[in-house]
Amino acid sequence: MAGKVYLIGAGPGDPELLTVRAMRLLQSAEIVVHDRLVSPEIMALIPPAARRISVGKSAGFHSVPQDQINGLLVALAREGHTVLRLKGGDPLIFGRGSEEAEELAAAGISYSYVPGITAAQGAASSTGVPLTHRGLATGVRYVTGHRARDEVLDLDWSSLADPDTTLVVYMGAANMAEIAARLIAAGMPVDLPVLAVAHATTPREARMLSDLTHIGADLARAPMEAPVLFMIGRVAGLHETAALPLPRDLRAAHLRVVGHG
Amino acid sequence: MAGKVYLIGAGPGDPELLTVRAMRLLQSAEIVVHDRLVSPEIMALIPPAARRISVGKSAGFHSVPQDQINGLLVALAREGHTVLRLKGGDPLIFGRGSEEAEELAAAGISYSYVPGITAAQGAASSTGVPLTHRGLATGVRYVTGHRARDEVLDLDWSSLADPDTTLVVYMGAANMAEIAARLIAAGMPVDLPVLAVAHATTPREARMLSDLTHIGADLARAPMEAPVLFMIGRVAGLHETAALPLPRDLRAAHLRVVGHG
Ligand SMILES: C[S@@+](CC[C@H](N)C(=O)[O-])C[C@H]1O[C@@H](n2cnc3c(N)ncnc32)[C@H](O)[C@@H]1O
Ligand SMILES: C[S@@+](CC[C@H](N)C(=O)[O-])C[C@H]1O[C@@H](n2cnc3c(N)ncnc32)[C@H](O)[C@@H]1O
Repeated sequence: MAGKVYLIGAGPGDPELLTVRAMRLLQSAEIVVHDRLVSPEIMALIPPAARRISVGKSAGFHSVPQDQINGLLVALAREGHTVLRLKGGDPLIFGRGSEEAEELAAAGISYSYVPGITAAQGAASSTGVPLTHRGLATGVRYVTGHRARDEVLDLDWSSLADPDTTLVVYMGAANMAEIAARLIAAGMPVDLPVLAVAHATTPREARMLSDLTHIGADLARAPMEAPVLFMIGRVAGLHETAALPLPRDLRAAHLRVVGHG
Repeated sequence: MAGKVYLIGAGPGDPELLTVRAMRLLQSAEIVVHDRLVSPEIMALIPPAARRISVGKSAGFHSVPQDQINGLLVALAREGHTVLRLKGGDPLIFGRGSEEAEELAAAGISYSYVPGITAAQGAASSTGVPLTHRGLATGVRYVTGHRARDEVLDLDWSSLADPDTTLVVYMGAANMAEIAARLIAAGMPVDLPVLAVAHATTPREARMLSDLTHIGADLARAPMEAPVLFMIGRVAGLHETAALPLPRDLRAAHLRVVGHG
């Protein structure tokens, strides 16, 4: 009898931000196929006897190609296993969960999604910067700043240049200078606040407050360790007033606020 | 000594989609101040001895004004209580969590956010419709379709009319016909799929598949019970192939697929 695959979002990193369902599945895991993005704190919850298979997928590292991941999931399920496919954040937001699901469906393997707190929500709750806020942001938008080697950034700049929408850029660290310049060229205010958040919700969380004009240079001067996301919009200006108390170590060692006031 | 307020996202409705932190806080709750949107299944987790205060906030019902909610939270915390402020979905996505936080901060009350799975993610995981998908949606955007009485819908239609971005409309049931017409006028394809999902992730979940041309008439013919959200974009077309098995009762009684193929 064929097994089943759970396409599970592990959230941004803090194990307490796993959903109850994800936690329950992890604690009785038999086989876990995971991305590099899943935090060590969450990996530590998996029973020692469970088999762990890392399939990489962090930018710049050698990683297992998507079709091999698909094949692995199908093969393990065909052997009758219950497989936990564990991804950072939410499986259906820049997570390729639905690509894996299509392959599973085509192979007749049953599967189920378990949503996770996406990185933008994790960063919002830990920094105190809301994704929507009356008078500052009527909506929120998630885009990817990643581009395949030698390709141009495929974003609709005029549509993105809406200062009433919080813009969250995933996978944008390498191209942030260009993204910021293009947003300004498309009409965004030059001093629109940008909050970069790395390792949101983990003990390694780091933040940098900048603006569209300076974010490129600020990142070049003080590079942040991946994963990083960028919250662009007037809401990011709430960071200093709304910011929640940081764990002591972060306050001392990692908080870098770069102002241009 | 002053108490503390937790601004907690309860997720879309399924108690298993609470975060571990939210579940832990709820199970030892002393006072819970909650919106109508929080599902009965989740309310049932609160200890019987805890005090529950409903502050309404569902469109069309009489509800407690925001400044009274703020005042209530401050007063309860000043009495030394630990207060759980429980909201549907995520507190920082159309949740006014940061407005309440500003009042708490101004009153010197400490607070903390606990993120929740937002309705769009709940609907995505239960229907199998991804928010991003290679070749179909390079990003996702959340907007509100709500407008104050007699006001015009304050949305930037040309920016919204991007068929490569999944558009999720919260609070849009009353204005969906107008929203769809304006999106078409701004250049969106007339047959762009729209999936309406009510009570996502609960036993009351209902779905209706339509397109931009027909969604207004379809909703008029077969109104859906609030809360409803709308997933607009090519990804919604994956509904029929990617749709996950429904709980039996839903399949029989509530699934309404209105096609225009
Ligand atoms: C391939 S995408 C996966 C996104 C994931 N599915 C989600 O919903 O968060 C990887 C990107 O997510 C963002 N990211 C994920 N976890 C993060 C964290 N804890 N802190 C900051 N950014 C994070 C970064 O922008 C990173 O480049
Ligand atoms: C005031 S907003 C609150 C949104 C919430 N903070 C969140 O992150 O999901 C209320 C709207 O959320 C959407 N919503 C919330 N829960 C839902 C559910 N279980 N199914 C469908 N839509 C839901 C509906 O569009 C509803 O009109």
